[in-house]
Amino acid sequence: MANRPKIEVCLSPALLHLFNPEDTVTVIIDVFRATSTIAAALHNGASKVIPVAAVDECVAIGAATSNSITAGERDGRIAEGLQHGNSPLEYPESFVSGKTLVLTTTNGTRLLHMVQGADIIVTGAFLNLGAICEFIVAQGKPVLLGCSGWKDRFNLEDTLLAGAIVSRVAEYFTVACDSARAARTLAEAAEGRYLEYLKDSSHYHRLASFGLDQDLAYCTTPNLHPVVPILSGNALVAYGK
Amino acid sequence: MANRPKIEVCLSPALLHLFNPEDTVTVIIDVFRATSTIAAALHNGASKVIPVAAVDECVAIGAATSNSITAGERDGRIAEGLQHGNSPLEYPESFVSGKTLVLTTTNGTRLLHMVQGADIIVTGAFLNLGAICEFIVAQGKPVLLGCSGWKDRFNLEDTLLAGAIVSRVAEYFTVACDSARAARTLAEAAEGRYLEYLKDSSHYHRLASFGLDQDLAYCTTPNLHPVVPILSGNALVAYGK
Repeated sequence: MANRPKIEVCLSPALLHLFNPEDTVTVIIDVFRATSTIAAALHNGASKVIPVAAVDECVAIGAATSNSITAGERDGRIAEGLQHGNSPLEYPESFVSGKTLVLTTTNGTRLLHMVQGADIIVTGAFLNLGAICEFIVAQGKPVLLGCSGWKDRFNLEDTLLAGAIVSRVAEYFTVACDSARAARTLAEAAEGRYLEYLKDSSHYHRLASFGLDQDLAYCTTPNLHPVVPILSGNALVAYGK
Repeated sequence: MANRPKIEVCLSPALLHLFNPEDTVTVIIDVFRATSTIAAALHNGASKVIPVAAVDECVAIGAATSNSITAGERDGRIAEGLQHGNSPLEYPESFVSGKTLVLTTTNGTRLLHMVQGADIIVTGAFLNLGAICEFIVAQGKPVLLGCSGWKDRFNLEDTLLAGAIVSRVAEYFTVACDSARAARTLAEAAEGRYLEYLKDSSHYHRLASFGLDQDLAYCTTPNLHPVVPILSGNALVAYGK
């Protein structure tokens, strides 16, 4: 028991300084919707996903990359200059296979860039929940689950996914972090009815007001895209593919 | 419904910049054990409690204040130069009545000084849970529940109390903050068995290792000290007394 690596949850990028990502497997979580879209795109055959923070950077990298798609939203609409949005439903195999997705998001991408000291960086969503759990258990290293939040605020959906991961892998890790314990309680209280639990959350209300109900239902469905997006250089690729 | 004031939960002092305490009733929470001790001392007749951050400040104010007691711990022991500890059990009526308690704590006092812009500042603990709920409902103002945490880290006990408050007063407020929703879920999942739920928390383990089990049981018992400690100048006094 003493030899089990620890698993911790960072509830907001504003708390990241309290954790040490070095030598960990860090799982970046941005359920609505960056890491859901990343899981869908890579599972559907995208060759890689390049996450970038700014729209102009997204345009520039897209222009310099053959067979690429630029994507990203601001306030629920495709950002000016980009081709596609942030919805995982926009990236079926018939469209995305073999392509490079250059994706700009705000919260998720920012966190991805903040944890560069980690040994391994992967991205997690309900869509690849089981695959991420298997991966982190197999690595046998300390794990940091990083919630992207919303402009540094705690959010319910990312914490719920972190808790669903902790709940599934607890026997292989030392859960010695109150955030991880709290997240686990939330996930277990939701009893797998994630969408229902999140219907009262801030981000759900915001995205539903943009007409994205279908996205929200999709993003809270476990294991539709069993893939492990792993950061390699500046891009996320499907692990083991 | 639209006219109900909002209730929010700040999970850590490191997230306080995301909230605006102005015009709110801010409830400072430091269950283990500053705000528990404050509730016990004031309910047992202390004339006031002066919270200070540093040991030397505590000594100086104690020396300058008649009929005062200096108190505070560092690493589970009475700090050098002070007379008493941080346990609510040290302050029965026979001892504390009519006296000024000058109390130094780390996390709770720090937060108290961070929210000076609030309209009203009170302190909350399980020991005065019901009194705090009645008070904030009666004020009819927006409420910010501020968790002291542990060195900026999220902690379970403060969040649990915040959730117990939200759960009890939800019908009088707009709960439009994911932290408040999460805290409420935790409290409702604990089903009133607060001590049992906290037995796996970081701070519980730390304080139990100092032999403070009795304190921990006491600090998680609701309503033993129905008092509202309210900040007036530099001191907390019993509201309405």
